[in-house]
Amino acid sequence: MRAVVMHAPGDVRVEERADPTITRPTDAIIRLAASCICGSDLWPYRGDDAVDHTPMGHEYVGVVTEIGDKVSQVKVGDFVVGSFFASDNTCEICQAGYQSRCIHAYPMGAIGTQAEYALIPMADGTLVATPGAPDPELIPSLLAASDVLGTGWFAAVAAEAGPGKTVAVVGDGAVGLLGILAARELGAERIIAMSRHADRQALAREFGATDIVEERGDAGVARIKELTGGYGAHSVIEAVGTQESMMQAIRATRAGGHVGYVGVSHDVSLDGLELFFSGVHLHGGPAPVRRFLPELIQLIWDRKIDPGKVFDLTLPLDEAAEGYRAMDERRATKVLLTV
Amino acid sequence: MRAVVMHAPGDVRVEERADPTITRPTDAIIRLAASCICGSDLWPYRGDDAVDHTPMGHEYVGVVTEIGDKVSQVKVGDFVVGSFFASDNTCEICQAGYQSRCIHAYPMGAIGTQAEYALIPMADGTLVATPGAPDPELIPSLLAASDVLGTGWFAAVAAEAGPGKTVAVVGDGAVGLLGILAARELGAERIIAMSRHADRQALAREFGATDIVEERGDAGVARIKELTGGYGAHSVIEAVGTQESMMQAIRATRAGGHVGYVGVSHDVSLDGLELFFSGVHLHGGPAPVRRFLPELIQLIWDRKIDPGKVFDLTLPLDEAAEGYRAMDERRATKVLLTV
Repeated sequence: MRAVVMHAPGDVRVEERADPTITRPTDAIIRLAASCICGSDLWPYRGDDAVDHTPMGHEYVGVVTEIGDKVSQVKVGDFVVGSFFASDNTCEICQAGYQSRCIHAYPMGAIGTQAEYALIPMADGTLVATPGAPDPELIPSLLAASDVLGTGWFAAVAAEAGPGKTVAVVGDGAVGLLGILAARELGAERIIAMSRHADRQALAREFGATDIVEERGDAGVARIKELTGGYGAHSVIEAVGTQESMMQAIRATRAGGHVGYVGVSHDVSLDGLELFFSGVHLHGGPAPVRRFLPELIQLIWDRKIDPGKVFDLTLPLDEAAEGYRAMDERRATKVLLTV
Repeated sequence: MRAVVMHAPGDVRVEERADPTITRPTDAIIRLAASCICGSDLWPYRGDDAVDHTPMGHEYVGVVTEIGDKVSQVKVGDFVVGSFFASDNTCEICQAGYQSRCIHAYPMGAIGTQAEYALIPMADGTLVATPGAPDPELIPSLLAASDVLGTGWFAAVAAEAGPGKTVAVVGDGAVGLLGILAARELGAERIIAMSRHADRQALAREFGATDIVEERGDAGVARIKELTGGYGAHSVIEAVGTQESMMQAIRATRAGGHVGYVGVSHDVSLDGLELFFSGVHLHGGPAPVRRFLPELIQLIWDRKIDPGKVFDLTLPLDEAAEGYRAMDERRATKVLLTV
């Protein structure tokens, strides 16, 4: 099969790899309908994470082509969506809704879903079938559910976005934008997008942002306080993962408020005493997308939300390298790869 | 009046200071019935926090002797309990239950309540009157409500202790011990005290601990996991404030679980990536004791809880120096000063 491999930072190739085969009775194999490039794929692309002839991709939708003997919740021919972490969905951690930290959690990034086929471990616990074969126009939104929508949704839930709340969103990538959409769906009263890019501001407003703040860092925090009677936001979504963005999120949150952080931390160190006196709730990590998939698939199926709009560039799998370049150069927010 | 002043680390004296006077119409003055020494007072005593001829003490119960013109919720003669932070109890932060981070919050430690009299700013928002003049035997428990009980209670609430939960408690000082009591009152199923001192283990059991773990650090974390099916505790109370205790608390908590941390952070730095992948909820800070005071006073008044048992040494105010020595040398868990 054809698959994306990152040989080294900046060196993305589409190559022939062996087709996956079922090795455990709980495995399934899917034929990808679409995959995509994640903001987190830019860390190794830019040399900030280690990479060495690494298969890429962890987001996926597609059709089941083969199942192991013990798979009973999906069948060959089903159109499925799964999370970027495979999970058993039966352990106490999964049952509490934290499937991304399942005691058997397996990162799909280690398999690489920017490919024609993908092996899905623990298929019963990982995959959710759609109600039927989706209209092609729904595929981008279903693909978004696999990570960026699920992650933005988790961030909004972790930040306790809801009625009466003012929610600020740090980060205007796909996850931050879909955190805005999630906050709107969860009933937030006011949603402040922190963004300085006109195209992303426009999508933020379309997804539900009521205010835009262009300032960053201390100036951004001051502006959020100014907009919230000096108190800070009730809820802040952090969707970047840098020291600056984390401190911006914590400092923009009022005492007793909630920070939902989903940007993968890079060289972040939190000062204990500042955190102590901030009085905020801090919760986040790799989003347990599986928890939200049934609800998100239904919202998409019913055309109540359109998260697929975050894809502003669509390329065939063979042109993945151009997709990486476009995201790296900020010419695209999120790139969909047709398979 | 007589009052405790710490001249320098290890140098505690009882001296004559000017009686407090009302300067704002929202002030009150109380005559202390009792005060006490806090574990956090040991930080400057040991030279870990700056101290220079500093009035000491932030816990207090007593009788109102004078009120400003705008004080209406307490009157002269009332027996009152207050938090270690004065608060207006009307701003949005207070109304959300975070009075210790009130936009007008004032630390009582800056006034010093190890003294015969104390000025109470924002008396209406800070003080809660007891239903009547308390029996002398209730005074230690009411004094505990002023900080250590309220702080332990907040830690248990922040850690979401409750029915069906396994709660681990890091720290066997007065706050940790009262966190155990709080977890029991909140209905926790299992409460694991982390302690290696026989006398504190005994009090922990009396307050509701079902298990004792003597190991610390990584070994302590391993033991908590062993006791919880490999998952970690649902809820962990951190009541120390060091790097080791914070990491012990975070690592002993299962993914999706809750850490309630109330030990004042000293040189604590949290690695963003480890916190990210821990998947825990982190909440804490200076406890909003005022939120809990009405409920805690009632529980004490009805003799349903007896938090005053944490006081294992009672001394007259004039012997405060011996009280500091006894706590520093761990001869006493918590010292009550009669005034």
